Amino acid sequence: MKFTTRKMVQFSNCDPFGIVFYPQYFYILSEAKEDFLTHIGHAHHHYINDLHLGWPMVRLETDFKRPSKYGDQIDVDIEVFKLGASSLGLEYTIRGNDGETRLVTRSVIVLTDMQNGRPVPIGDDLRAALAPYLIV
Amino acid sequence: MKFTTRKMVQFSNCDPFGIVFYPQYFYILSEAKEDFLTHIGHAHHHYINDLHLGWPMVRLETDFKRPSKYGDQIDVDIEVFKLGASSLGLEYTIRGNDGETRLVTRSVIVLTDMQNGRPVPIGDDLRAALAPYLIV
Amino acid sequence: MKFTTRKMVQFSNCDPFGIVFYPQYFYILSEAKEDFLTHIGHAHHHYINDLHLGWPMVRLETDFKRPSKYGDQIDVDIEVFKLGASSLGLEYTIRGNDGETRLVTRSVIVLTDMQNGRPVPIGDDLRAALAPYLIV
Amino acid sequence: MKFTTRKMVQFSNCDPFGIVFYPQYFYILSEAKEDFLTHIGHAHHHYINDLHLGWPMVRLETDFKRPSKYGDQIDVDIEVFKLGASSLGLEYTIRGNDGETRLVTRSVIVLTDMQNGRPVPIGDDLRAALAPYLIV
Repeated sequence: MKFTTRKMVQFSNCDPFGIVFYPQYFYILSEAKEDFLTHIGHAHHHYINDLHLGWPMVRLETDFKRPSKYGDQIDVDIEVFKLGASSLGLEYTIRGNDGETRLVTRSVIVLTDMQNGRPVPIGDDLRAALAPYLIV
Repeated sequence: MKFTTRKMVQFSNCDPFGIVFYPQYFYILSEAKEDFLTHIGHAHHHYINDLHLGWPMVRLETDFKRPSKYGDQIDVDIEVFKLGASSLGLEYTIRGNDGETRLVTRSVIVLTDMQNGRPVPIGDDLRAALAPYLIV
Repeated sequence: MKFTTRKMVQFSNCDPFGIVFYPQYFYILSEAKEDFLTHIGHAHHHYINDLHLGWPMVRLETDFKRPSKYGDQIDVDIEVFKLGASSLGLEYTIRGNDGETRLVTRSVIVLTDMQNGRPVPIGDDLRAALAPYLIV
Repeated sequence: MKFTTRKMVQFSNCDPFGIVFYPQYFYILSEAKEDFLTHIGHAHHHYINDLHLGWPMVRLETDFKRPSKYGDQIDVDIEVFKLGASSLGLEYTIRGNDGETRLVTRSVIVLTDMQNGRPVPIGDDLRAALAPYLIV
């Protein structure tokens, strides 16, 4: 199963060539992750604000395949490629409305107690909510 | 008449105090302006990409009244306080879901031919589309 | 007396027209304020990290006069136009290396205890360090 | 040979946990790349503005090892791990002033004619300027 969320490339995402400046893609992916975690009932802002749990990133890999322009509608697909004790591997694929893949990102984030910086086990509820998105 | 668009404060908008860092409000307002111009049939990305017309800012005034936190749902109201030959005054009010005003911004932008930097008259169509939002 | 700090317009500051996107100016001004406060011996990061005192913004006014391009060297002048009990009015002027003014900003910030959100009096040391920059 | 440039973590780089939000590292690396290319006599803004040549990114890999806080002085080391016909592999290491590695990034960028999107061979001058930084 994949989660998909639609975004529009904003003016503020674009560089002097009129295309997304690469770090801006990670803001788009950050919003997509928020959409995903909210969709599965584990909203990022609830974890951060109420539980003081965060998801710092430990590893990020991206292949940039085609540029995106201001005003493009893009779809972000999210799948889970790793579901460890505390770590979560998310794969993001951004597709344009021409069907072409714009980029593929694999990131590993770790559920962390933000008060002491220690990893926290992914609980059963969250694990069950993530499991359907595991790439088999 | 007011145009209203709903946004959520993103993690990336927030500073070490967990509240929106003030320049980030202008990214939220930039998206709200895009929503407004699209709603009235004069999408910013169409103007920029196809007509090479932009809306550079010449004047900006903001009163920051209350902070916004990550995860807050906020409503952005847009009204027109000036409709000149080429210039457009937009007033933005951001309200929290507690009903409190977070900020009020007045900005003046100028319709501009981005190839030569000269102001361009606001055409009848666009003027008619903006008129209902004029503050009387 | 004026404080002046030199910056270069970065690629990441610029929009599809190759000029600074207006919210990005406030990041440049934020760095210039840091340079100023460090220069007068009251570094912003020391206030934030060690004293839990911040300077949230309550009022911002900007006139944008001329665009800046990627690679431009710009000088940011800072003067004090208000020195209240807790509030500090800073005027910023950005000049290009062609001598032309790019923008003028007046901002009012308030020294605040970030743990309870209350204004804190500007102490004698800080007041004495700011006084030479007061516009008379 | 390594190129090293010193940066300070800005307030605007930091998230609600008071540490650098990961996409902001790429803005710091973007400035560091600008410093490097200027140092070797091939300034990015000269390439972009005058030659219409850019360096779009095709591949990015980062390991995040330790967080950085607002006010941290950090050193960015740059080395060349690949010098292809048109492609350039840059390895960045960010170290804190405690000597600890904060992150390691490997990116592949491609010299590109930004008017037609085609790769352009890296000329002899630029190749000679980059060669001393090749990891052997």
